[in-house]
Amino acid sequence: MSKPQPIEYADASPQVRAVFDDIKKTRNVADVNNFWKYLAHDPSTLKRTWESIREVMAPGALDPLVKEMIYVAVSVTNGCGYCIASHTASARRAGMTEAMFGELMAVVGMANETNRLVNGYRVPIDTAFDT
Amino acid sequence: MSKPQPIEYADASPQVRAVFDDIKKTRNVADVNNFWKYLAHDPSTLKRTWESIREVMAPGALDPLVKEMIYVAVSVTNGCGYCIASHTASARRAGMTEAMFGELMAVVGMANETNRLVNGYRVPIDTAFDT
Amino acid sequence: MSKPQPIEYADASPQVRAVFDDIKKTRNVADVNNFWKYLAHDPSTLKRTWESIREVMAPGALDPLVKEMIYVAVSVTNGCGYCIASHTASARRAGMTEAMFGELMAVVGMANETNRLVNGYRVPIDTAFDT
Amino acid sequence: MSKPQPIEYADASPQVRAVFDDIKKTRNVADVNNFWKYLAHDPSTLKRTWESIREVMAPGALDPLVKEMIYVAVSVTNGCGYCIASHTASARRAGMTEAMFGELMAVVGMANETNRLVNGYRVPIDTAFDT
Amino acid sequence: MSKPQPIEYADASPQVRAVFDDIKKTRNVADVNNFWKYLAHDPSTLKRTWESIREVMAPGALDPLVKEMIYVAVSVTNGCGYCIASHTASARRAGMTEAMFGELMAVVGMANETNRLVNGYRVPIDTAFDT
Amino acid sequence: MSKPQPIEYADASPQVRAVFDDIKKTRNVADVNNFWKYLAHDPSTLKRTWESIREVMAPGALDPLVKEMIYVAVSVTNGCGYCIASHTASARRAGMTEAMFGELMAVVGMANETNRLVNGYRVPIDTAFDT
Repeated sequence: MSKPQPIEYADASPQVRAVFDDIKKTRNVADVNNFWKYLAHDPSTLKRTWESIREVMAPGALDPLVKEMIYVAVSVTNGCGYCIASHTASARRAGMTEAMFGELMAVVGMANETNRLVNGYRVPIDTAFDT
Repeated sequence: MSKPQPIEYADASPQVRAVFDDIKKTRNVADVNNFWKYLAHDPSTLKRTWESIREVMAPGALDPLVKEMIYVAVSVTNGCGYCIASHTASARRAGMTEAMFGELMAVVGMANETNRLVNGYRVPIDTAFDT
Repeated sequence: MSKPQPIEYADASPQVRAVFDDIKKTRNVADVNNFWKYLAHDPSTLKRTWESIREVMAPGALDPLVKEMIYVAVSVTNGCGYCIASHTASARRAGMTEAMFGELMAVVGMANETNRLVNGYRVPIDTAFDT
Repeated sequence: MSKPQPIEYADASPQVRAVFDDIKKTRNVADVNNFWKYLAHDPSTLKRTWESIREVMAPGALDPLVKEMIYVAVSVTNGCGYCIASHTASARRAGMTEAMFGELMAVVGMANETNRLVNGYRVPIDTAFDT
Repeated sequence: MSKPQPIEYADASPQVRAVFDDIKKTRNVADVNNFWKYLAHDPSTLKRTWESIREVMAPGALDPLVKEMIYVAVSVTNGCGYCIASHTASARRAGMTEAMFGELMAVVGMANETNRLVNGYRVPIDTAFDT
Repeated sequence: MSKPQPIEYADASPQVRAVFDDIKKTRNVADVNNFWKYLAHDPSTLKRTWESIREVMAPGALDPLVKEMIYVAVSVTNGCGYCIASHTASARRAGMTEAMFGELMAVVGMANETNRLVNGYRVPIDTAFDT
């Protein structure tokens, strides 16, 4: 009946250790974050989530900094404290300056405001955007 | 008791026309979008929202394309159909390619998924992110 | 496998008709709104919801107009189109003017914006508010 | 101007005590949870909420375990920490295993992800689902 | 600058066709739903999402009907019209009766209500749930 | 890489101090709340947000108490702990009684519940509300 607890490497199954090893190697870090230590309770979700994140957050048409800022924008909108903390840290490591963070927050704030003005005023989609 | 209706330029007050004129000039467009025509019911909200948007979405530490994609990320998370349509159009005009849109959606999807995994597993913030 | 359909009075069970009758009498209307015709698929939810709404929305420490505007504020935040339409109509019937609607939307917009600024900047609760 | 505080049985009005007594008897517990001690500030909301919960969460076409897991799914989606903690505990008492919890989280995560992919790609409802 | 359009099998790349074929075979259907036809714009998201869905929604510790109802609970909470329509249809195919749907809706409604009562009354987590 | 920290008056730039001074004077308080001390990292957002709040929350067609309760309704719906705490305090200062708070919470709870019942039952907007 207890609250979920983190699973540390020393106590992890071989399947979980394999994912932890891949995270540590890919990110060049000494240990994995709490997120992965908790997901380790479900090795298939751990593996699937890590593989998806690795694929989705890799450099592509968008660079990693932009991707991390988009992650922060979603997390701030949803109010996920852990996600805001961890992805803000990732964005800073990827080069987000204080000024960029400020503008990111300003856009997220405005979007959340205008989303509701649109709802309340029941604004129909302009024909130009709907074809 | 009626549903809000758009206010067209021809029927607008001088105060509203001044905002419409500034939008048209700033964006170099022949007419304003529905959003502004509905906000025109409240000239002070119209003016304040336009001035805020103009300031927030201007080029700065982040370029307009990144800002529009962040706007889309928030709107998709909130499920605002009008906002998704209009800001996806703006992002495309600012240079968003099909590949960039695909990656944007992939990141938004993953962030919404992992935000909930964090909630459900009650993951505490790593000390490194919280100081 | 079909989409839910409304249940009209003529086709309703005695249990559902009793609720419909009470709604019509309480609100002095000739027919109930779609919301009730769809909830009629589950007579216990129909009855419980109507009794809760009747109790919660009755005049009390807050007058009906304020209650309807709070209902609109929540519905706009959640993006529930039906609820925005029906409770805006109720608020207007209860006396909401165009100016009041405009200020309601402005507050809802600002609250949604600042809620996210607080999340993003990770603002701790002031001691004065937390004791 | 203070933060809400719990109302303990010893300090409760007869009306509140009657609800507390019913909760303790129905659930066979020595004391009620914090949720009820805080709602006790508004005896009519306390009574209405308890009666609704008792009716809605009772065994019916769905068994209590499924109902508790649905409650967790909603609470995780909304990010309500208290509700996640209390309904996860209830689900475990009703028989939720570690494996079931893992699959619950996986489904909740996927649903939150694909809800946004649908929004972003503006997917229209298939005719088969809309009739 | 156009709205996303579905990609039909006849126009799809071999990579997309392979996913469509697997969906059709796994689900024993003649054609894929709109969701997949739109995701086809991004073959890697299409493939990853399908593989994740197939893994997550497969029978396991929870049966497919329970999983579909959890999916509906999340989609209703988020207000995703397409997802509500498609997963309600899937749940019905998996055996959801009218009575089960009614109870599902009742639980989802109550959870969304009490999540907010908890927020507003600022209810702290009971020690028993937090250890 | 650190967590945002508050900027105190003594350490603030002249531009930030000017806003802090205006807040203190307008609200007749000795110091500004944490919200403003964190926004101070981005002086343009600080200034814009304060000016917007000052305009939107001023007495108008709606009195300040109603506006604060609407702010609380949105913040409770979004689950913003800081905003719930600070705007509940503001509402109490503006005259919100315990009974009014109780009714506010009851309406917010019901609205969040019925918003989801509407989504799940896919209730179409009554013609009377949509014209």
